[in-house]
Amino acid sequence: MRKILLIGAGRSSSSLITYLLQKSFSENLHITIADVSIDLAKKILQNHKNSIAITLDIFNNEERQKVIKNADIVISMLPAHLHLNVAKDCLAFGKNMVTASYISDEMSQLNDEAIKKNLIFMNEVGLDPGIDHMSAMKVIDSIREKGGKMLLFESFTGGLVAPESDDNLWNYKFTWNPRNVVLAGQGGAAKFLQEGNYKYIPYHKLFRRTEILNIEGHGKFEGYANRDSLKYKTVYGLNDILTLYRGTIRRVGYSRAWNVFVQLGMTDDSYTIEDSEHMSYRDFTNSFLAYNPHDSVELKLRHYLKIDQDDIIWEKLLEIDIFNPNKQVVLKNATPAQILEKILKDSWTLKEDDKDMIVMQHLFGYELNGKKHQIESSMVCIGDNQTYTAMAKTVGLPVAIAALKILNGEIKTPGVQIPISKEVYQPILKELEENGIVFKEKEASYFGYNPDVIIN
Amino acid sequence: MRKILLIGAGRSSSSLITYLLQKSFSENLHITIADVSIDLAKKILQNHKNSIAITLDIFNNEERQKVIKNADIVISMLPAHLHLNVAKDCLAFGKNMVTASYISDEMSQLNDEAIKKNLIFMNEVGLDPGIDHMSAMKVIDSIREKGGKMLLFESFTGGLVAPESDDNLWNYKFTWNPRNVVLAGQGGAAKFLQEGNYKYIPYHKLFRRTEILNIEGHGKFEGYANRDSLKYKTVYGLNDILTLYRGTIRRVGYSRAWNVFVQLGMTDDSYTIEDSEHMSYRDFTNSFLAYNPHDSVELKLRHYLKIDQDDIIWEKLLEIDIFNPNKQVVLKNATPAQILEKILKDSWTLKEDDKDMIVMQHLFGYELNGKKHQIESSMVCIGDNQTYTAMAKTVGLPVAIAALKILNGEIKTPGVQIPISKEVYQPILKELEENGIVFKEKEASYFGYNPDVIIN
Repeated sequence: MRKILLIGAGRSSSSLITYLLQKSFSENLHITIADVSIDLAKKILQNHKNSIAITLDIFNNEERQKVIKNADIVISMLPAHLHLNVAKDCLAFGKNMVTASYISDEMSQLNDEAIKKNLIFMNEVGLDPGIDHMSAMKVIDSIREKGGKMLLFESFTGGLVAPESDDNLWNYKFTWNPRNVVLAGQGGAAKFLQEGNYKYIPYHKLFRRTEILNIEGHGKFEGYANRDSLKYKTVYGLNDILTLYRGTIRRVGYSRAWNVFVQLGMTDDSYTIEDSEHMSYRDFTNSFLAYNPHDSVELKLRHYLKIDQDDIIWEKLLEIDIFNPNKQVVLKNATPAQILEKILKDSWTLKEDDKDMIVMQHLFGYELNGKKHQIESSMVCIGDNQTYTAMAKTVGLPVAIAALKILNGEIKTPGVQIPISKEVYQPILKELEENGIVFKEKEASYFGYNPDVIIN
Repeated sequence: MRKILLIGAGRSSSSLITYLLQKSFSENLHITIADVSIDLAKKILQNHKNSIAITLDIFNNEERQKVIKNADIVISMLPAHLHLNVAKDCLAFGKNMVTASYISDEMSQLNDEAIKKNLIFMNEVGLDPGIDHMSAMKVIDSIREKGGKMLLFESFTGGLVAPESDDNLWNYKFTWNPRNVVLAGQGGAAKFLQEGNYKYIPYHKLFRRTEILNIEGHGKFEGYANRDSLKYKTVYGLNDILTLYRGTIRRVGYSRAWNVFVQLGMTDDSYTIEDSEHMSYRDFTNSFLAYNPHDSVELKLRHYLKIDQDDIIWEKLLEIDIFNPNKQVVLKNATPAQILEKILKDSWTLKEDDKDMIVMQHLFGYELNGKKHQIESSMVCIGDNQTYTAMAKTVGLPVAIAALKILNGEIKTPGVQIPISKEVYQPILKELEENGIVFKEKEASYFGYNPDVIIN
């Protein structure tokens, strides 16, 4: 039997594991799952005969090296900063490796040695990064193959609540790490290209500069710019492109309301609030408003942020209870962002039967024989339940598929890499389709980046 | 003769040097000025017989130690991060030392040894920090001496252009380091106390949360919050105070217009603008606005920031020429903040005959025998010319006076310290008064912190 070692079994590993178990008979696989805590893994494995769950302290070199040495391929689903030791062991013992994380500089530096040892270290092969790379490069390569010249690339991804479970005014629930949602967009201005012009949006304006997108059969969404659009020039070889924009998808209206938290300063994670432990939600909100002995927190906030009497934003704020004097923050020495996360968790935690949804859309503009064209490629994936979420499927399946294709020698070019070559994305996308993760492509007339043109 | 060594002779040293030269006969002083560049020093010294200017490379240990060893007292006007080597030499050779900079942690750690060797390391004895400490502690001590209990302390300082030289719509020119003006307020939320409530203002709201202050005979000003108000609780021993607020003074209307730069993202110093070298001022402005093939940069900006047709902010923006397509940025790989600094320097540089002005105001609220009182203490200093600026006088004179008082044994308590004890501030403030730097104190009825009460 061929031995697959999966290190780290968090929330996104359900579909990954189940896929491998299903293939274990026909493909002759044995799956070892190693984690500090193996309760979740055991629940998914259900004593499957081709599997075992073991506890592993990733910082124990001897233990770690022993299990890696014994594997035929290693999948690391650890937090990104913990991959490196695993990678070094894989190099030492000659094992291929798969991760869903962004390549770190340290990981890149292993490239020469990996090639020398004919090893594949496949990274960024989850959802975003992962499916975004593969589905985008498929269309970009096909445009290039027919002689087209890329003019525009816009790409949006979002993890949302599925329509059938969407029951709050924000049309949003936490389907992934809530902390990342609260901190989204921070750390520097968003940078992108529009029709050859470099554009910069500071964090405090990000949520008021959204773009509207339409996904056939699923309605309108909005996207706010990611920080890092420009780096995809090099990654995808789009050096002469005129428009380059990557964004995060939310339901229309979310960002305008989220902007209230940004404006107040509630998303700041750089300092702690005095005596946060004994504050009510109302005290927390009031700490961002000017002192006044008479006026209500409500009116001060409305006035400060110019929220009209009839603005739906107000109902959204009431819904999450930020004016409640009886709910306590409880958290000790907490940053504003930590407190906001706690407040939002009260309202935005998925209920037991709730389903999540992943939405991805790419727009490609190109010129061919003097004519301009546009392609729209969209994917929507809805979770089955709280175990097999859309997030778990879209992150875990491409990882599992990549691992098996590498094991089977279908993917064979060595090196530290991401899934942007045809050898990699073609078989993975094909098998993703068979598992229900399907991109619908649509030719459209070119409108470039033109805010006056409404996408219908 | 008693030998004073001044290391570092920048723009703020003119009044410092002249004061010492004037005292050199009666006090039997010889002044050595050491700097990498001694042109400015020579111009001020004018071959005064009790002085000498020498070139000194501060990083050359041997050279530095030689001059320090030879001095009776050392004044360091170096940039703050360069004081430490000087301080260590002073410790080694048993010399007292004076600086106008904030005490660093490393400097504080020399305290025990300084006391053991009976040495005075006086820091923060310029304007802000410096005169602010002394003038505030004088009133705070007097309130305490008569049995009063401090309720409120607000303190504002600003470096402005003098009214007679005020000829632009912003009522502002660069009278000090322009870079610091562009970056002012960045690096974290402003924190302060109002009537017992901790308040937090994020950077992007700072310039819309100004307070109005009135300085008798000089009209109304505005103040925006400094980042660090809370630390003065410990520094001044104001542990139970209800209102604690420190701010920076500008002419009324400045901050509301400055907020345009903040909102656009023009004050960001964390990334560089693509191809800044070949940009016009208009291109720079446009890079913060959404792409549109037809609309003007002007209308896009008006719409984005909701600037009404008749808003004076618009005239201020026109005055500094940010829409000019013919003026070039020229700077290579520049950050937005560096480009903004360049644009503003075109308009805000002092002309040869321009004078600057320093404005400081403290408000003290206290309770005595069950009654509440308030004291207002204000100082305005206008520069003589571009050499003896108000900034040079208010920074340099207290340093010079402190050095002489230490040399004469009038200030004698050893240790690494700031001028908050009566032994220090009383003689210095007295002599500052004789040199025209005068605080006017005024008793008022207590209004505490109440935004509904207009200060008249």
